[in-house]
Amino acid sequence: MRPKMQAVAEGTRWMLRLDQGQDLFAALSDFAREQSIRAAAVVSGIGMLKDIGIGYWNGAEYVRKDLAEPHELVGLHGSIAEADGPSIHLHAALATPDHELVGGHLMRGTVWVLNEILLETFPGRVFGRPIDETLGLRKLDLEPSRLAAP
Amino acid sequence: MRPKMQAVAEGTRWMLRLDQGQDLFAALSDFAREQSIRAAAVVSGIGMLKDIGIGYWNGAEYVRKDLAEPHELVGLHGSIAEADGPSIHLHAALATPDHELVGGHLMRGTVWVLNEILLETFPGRVFGRPIDETLGLRKLDLEPSRLAAP
Amino acid sequence: MRPKMQAVAEGTRWMLRLDQGQDLFAALSDFAREQSIRAAAVVSGIGMLKDIGIGYWNGAEYVRKDLAEPHELVGLHGSIAEADGPSIHLHAALATPDHELVGGHLMRGTVWVLNEILLETFPGRVFGRPIDETLGLRKLDLEPSRLAAP
Repeated sequence: MRPKMQAVAEGTRWMLRLDQGQDLFAALSDFAREQSIRAAAVVSGIGMLKDIGIGYWNGAEYVRKDLAEPHELVGLHGSIAEADGPSIHLHAALATPDHELVGGHLMRGTVWVLNEILLETFPGRVFGRPIDETLGLRKLDLEPSRLAAP
Repeated sequence: MRPKMQAVAEGTRWMLRLDQGQDLFAALSDFAREQSIRAAAVVSGIGMLKDIGIGYWNGAEYVRKDLAEPHELVGLHGSIAEADGPSIHLHAALATPDHELVGGHLMRGTVWVLNEILLETFPGRVFGRPIDETLGLRKLDLEPSRLAAP
Repeated sequence: MRPKMQAVAEGTRWMLRLDQGQDLFAALSDFAREQSIRAAAVVSGIGMLKDIGIGYWNGAEYVRKDLAEPHELVGLHGSIAEADGPSIHLHAALATPDHELVGGHLMRGTVWVLNEILLETFPGRVFGRPIDETLGLRKLDLEPSRLAAP
């Protein structure tokens, strides 16, 4: 059976349940596209992830670590902006089988068992994620139209 | 003096202050029962916990670790559903006296000093937590009435 | 160029983007003062921090550790109350260059790259943070006017 996401709304808030096998970034991108979400915070997320990539920004590049094994997802936070489609920035805290926590900037992850995720959206707004040439990184911009003005 | 919880609401949101000595799961269950909360996200939580149990799901059972000593509660996230009374699913990140983080699926915990917890409720909704026979685990169901239909 | 914060509101919620070089506590205090925020939860925060101080409460004092190097900010949660100006209580989870997590009670931090922070405010309310003489600590009080009554 194909993995399937549940989503229910209350005002500007969405509770999501992602199912085993879903790619976390693809699932959130698809959802943002379907619901025309162009500005949101990923407020909370638990469950498990496997096939995980986490990064540490050393000022020039992400020092990457890959974790194939399932880990408990203990914290998931970030934002959804728009930069040629949904731009999703997530940081994650993950527990190993020994209950130690690892984490950082999340580069990829596949849902294991399930994920319970809470989004808070900002309807009518568009967050941007333009490249900051000085840092060599994309940075969240809460008011891109204001900066774009001459 | 008996430990005592404070709770204030803003719209569909509750801010809670739990007091030293309270059992975290019992306090949240009692609160959900009193306020008829049948669908909610535990969005944020800090403070300290002691007499903690954390688990890692290895596919068959929770590999459990118990921490008697007080730990800083650095992250607390999850959901409140209904399954013969309030069903509370929490993951926690906890700091040791050496400032290292441990955590995972939270199985028990007693409030130390205080806990500051934010809930976002979904009034009018009932989240379920039925057993998934394939996984041998209870899984959040955001729309149980839809699945229960013939 | 002087570091500059962005802030956009949706109802009682604020999304903030702090910029490299800002002192995290000073920036949040200034913002609370400007917006007359006297009761709020810091719900979510990611980005990077450097010049960090974290503490573990051992029952008598905070056992402190200082981290000069930039760390990924993986979790940031807490509350804003009022006690002779804004009183900000934060706990943080931070990733080292080796992707290990450290954290606890946050005592100081300077924004690195950026911080994306979500606040939920309780307009019309004032949270207090009076000293608990028994514990020797300031403790969040969600209804200080009620306790102040004779």
